[in-house]
Amino acid sequence: MSQAQELDLERVYAHIDAHGDEIVERLRTLCRQPSVSAQGLGLEEMARLVRRMLDELGFQTELVPLEDGPPVVYGELLNPNAKKTLVIYNHYDVQPPEPLELWESDPWAAEVRDGKVYARGAADNKANIASRLAAIEAFLKTRGEVPCSIKWVIEGEEEIGSPHLREFIERYKGRLKGDGAIWEFGGLDYGDVPGITLGLKGMLYVELRVQTLGRDAHSANAAIVESPVWRLIRALSTLQDGEGRILVEGWYDDVRDFTPEELEALEREPLDEEQLKRDLGVPRFLRGMTGLELKKALAGAPTANLAGLWAGYTGRGHKTVLPKEAHAKMDFRLVPDQDPQKLKALLRQHLERHGFGDVELTIQAETPAARTPITAPIVQVARETAREVFQKEPNVHVSSGGSGPMYHFTTVLGLPTVAIGCNHPYSNTHAPNENQRIDVLVQGTKWIAAVIARFGALTA
Amino acid sequence: MSQAQELDLERVYAHIDAHGDEIVERLRTLCRQPSVSAQGLGLEEMARLVRRMLDELGFQTELVPLEDGPPVVYGELLNPNAKKTLVIYNHYDVQPPEPLELWESDPWAAEVRDGKVYARGAADNKANIASRLAAIEAFLKTRGEVPCSIKWVIEGEEEIGSPHLREFIERYKGRLKGDGAIWEFGGLDYGDVPGITLGLKGMLYVELRVQTLGRDAHSANAAIVESPVWRLIRALSTLQDGEGRILVEGWYDDVRDFTPEELEALEREPLDEEQLKRDLGVPRFLRGMTGLELKKALAGAPTANLAGLWAGYTGRGHKTVLPKEAHAKMDFRLVPDQDPQKLKALLRQHLERHGFGDVELTIQAETPAARTPITAPIVQVARETAREVFQKEPNVHVSSGGSGPMYHFTTVLGLPTVAIGCNHPYSNTHAPNENQRIDVLVQGTKWIAAVIARFGALTA
Repeated sequence: MSQAQELDLERVYAHIDAHGDEIVERLRTLCRQPSVSAQGLGLEEMARLVRRMLDELGFQTELVPLEDGPPVVYGELLNPNAKKTLVIYNHYDVQPPEPLELWESDPWAAEVRDGKVYARGAADNKANIASRLAAIEAFLKTRGEVPCSIKWVIEGEEEIGSPHLREFIERYKGRLKGDGAIWEFGGLDYGDVPGITLGLKGMLYVELRVQTLGRDAHSANAAIVESPVWRLIRALSTLQDGEGRILVEGWYDDVRDFTPEELEALEREPLDEEQLKRDLGVPRFLRGMTGLELKKALAGAPTANLAGLWAGYTGRGHKTVLPKEAHAKMDFRLVPDQDPQKLKALLRQHLERHGFGDVELTIQAETPAARTPITAPIVQVARETAREVFQKEPNVHVSSGGSGPMYHFTTVLGLPTVAIGCNHPYSNTHAPNENQRIDVLVQGTKWIAAVIARFGALTA
Repeated sequence: MSQAQELDLERVYAHIDAHGDEIVERLRTLCRQPSVSAQGLGLEEMARLVRRMLDELGFQTELVPLEDGPPVVYGELLNPNAKKTLVIYNHYDVQPPEPLELWESDPWAAEVRDGKVYARGAADNKANIASRLAAIEAFLKTRGEVPCSIKWVIEGEEEIGSPHLREFIERYKGRLKGDGAIWEFGGLDYGDVPGITLGLKGMLYVELRVQTLGRDAHSANAAIVESPVWRLIRALSTLQDGEGRILVEGWYDDVRDFTPEELEALEREPLDEEQLKRDLGVPRFLRGMTGLELKKALAGAPTANLAGLWAGYTGRGHKTVLPKEAHAKMDFRLVPDQDPQKLKALLRQHLERHGFGDVELTIQAETPAARTPITAPIVQVARETAREVFQKEPNVHVSSGGSGPMYHFTTVLGLPTVAIGCNHPYSNTHAPNENQRIDVLVQGTKWIAAVIARFGALTA
């Protein structure tokens, strides 16, 4: 007996297949409403639209107002007969669409071409919202109820670092009890193989500023006055060696080793190194890494990236100025169990110890890493259902190299969390001509439905 | 007998005093014509206006076309009876007036307030053009001839680094024979003491660029790819120590020592260190320098200034990008007898030797330093006439800390050159509300007249 038969999913799948056009139309409706958090564009309207869609399925919904940000859409669809509760996280905000001239169609028109919906936000993250709505609707229409209770958090600031999600989680912690969670993204990897991601790196985002003069001065004064630009360069050069190793004392102390199961998953994880090199335009990887070492670095290495650096005159031609100040933006990616609070203090101590106590640090984000144990039941559920729906052995990614607020769910709420969904590579996420493949949208909806059913049927 | 009596300058001075209003009006006419080289604004019109003013005094004039820039105004007023020829250098272009909102009156209106003419270019460099015109006119009106032959070069690109002056000098070298030169700026120092500047530092302006990726990438890739920003920081940190000393091998090899006379002049040169610290907003000078050491650094230290530095995201908030490239702009100020061609090669060698051969260098300017011997007769002329006109012992500045194309005159043409004129401190040169004090304009005109007379009377 197949899993679908066992879980009686045939009618649910049939409903999803029969209503593919409606899923696409719901996605296009979501995409036609701009919702750019970085530009404060359309967020209230978007929150109301999403809420209405949840209301239509019978969710108990709220628009949860936040101190200084757009509301969180929160919805509960409880089944008193269900043993399990699944928490879902999504975001209704999108990246800015610029540069507009590189789009082949209006980023808010949600044009359908070649089996894809083209729009800013189509893939990230509106397709996953549409897909999860459709999966839940399929249960309601075919069975009159969902196999597990659903608690759904849809925030409006993910693309700007979720600055108020902590506030929401603190307030709703009591109501967000559950047995597992589905993260906002996920879907097919290269080669259309389903992927399941179990973790995200954390983030300590710091702006550094050095000032040594009261005003910008004629650069003749470089003969007699210390330059803040040279000072920043010397301070930065104490932070990392030439091969990506962070030199801040104690930075690696709390780094958790991979478990044998995680190492095994990393070994199995496919990685086309030549294609990755071509894609990034690099002749080699840092320290000549390859194979498992390379995969361990992507999934588990703390990084100290210089995302921005600026001082003085940066325009055309030459200007001779001794700038009064110099700036850097750094994103430190963190891994379990690094604590951003502790690292912040280590960074300050390091700069002081090296004679750079005057370097001003401004913390712009601090989120710990998240990693769901590979042995958690929801991981097994995601694997088995992926095999069923896609007829392929899924890739399990111990951790993405990227970051996000998953920590609030895995650690603060204690929910084992898997990132699965209807995304696909080549969707131009965060770039012009973002798009969502309609076939993956429908398949991903079945995957979510299967996860909901199988998770609801878990006995442990 | 006073110098003025000896040189029969009383009537010349009286003419200048009697025509003060005309000098001011001529300056205002020059100021009302915008001439911003950085913006290509009004340069042809300005060149024609200046040429007309020289024509009116009887100069033989030309507008010398240059390959890619505005014309040089060149004029000769030869006196076949004179023994000496004085070359004058000025520029008719000005800095951009922006930011306009900080001006109290229109930068092109040349409004007169509180005894000053307010306009972009009023002090730098149009007052010196008006003043020199008036001094020459005073001789012509009172004597019918000038005491020495005059060859006048007025270019239109000084504020953007005189990119085509070399071309002009090459072509006119044969005609620019003379016995000495007056530079474009000069006048009163703080406390209204006349100052005579004998040199300028040279300039090697270099843009550095490092690229390690084919495209900007998600900063998760910092775990596996070398960052061009870190690479630029490490390359730069090999170039200078923490106290302003350049670490490029051989950089100081050709630095000429000050002569005993120059050291004596430096010792005598006044420098209010506390005021300079307040003005620059610094608690101390580099290496704790003070006294002669500080003055030697300003006049004679090579510098490696970071005028600009940029990479990645420099806007508000946080973005996590691994930039594909990183940039720096550096102005190296040079002193006699450093050769920018040789230093350029040393810089390349240094980077290669330290493993940074991939750092791209683009040279944007390369001008050697200039320094007129303090013992040159024209220096003595400038000193004696300053005493006569201002009734004060002038300050002799061995070198400005700034740069300019004086090298073409001192070294290529072999003309001992002094920077004297009608400038004054607090004139807001290159800044909003640039202004020219009218009293100094008139006094400076007498100084130029006295220099012309005394230089013409030199027997050696």
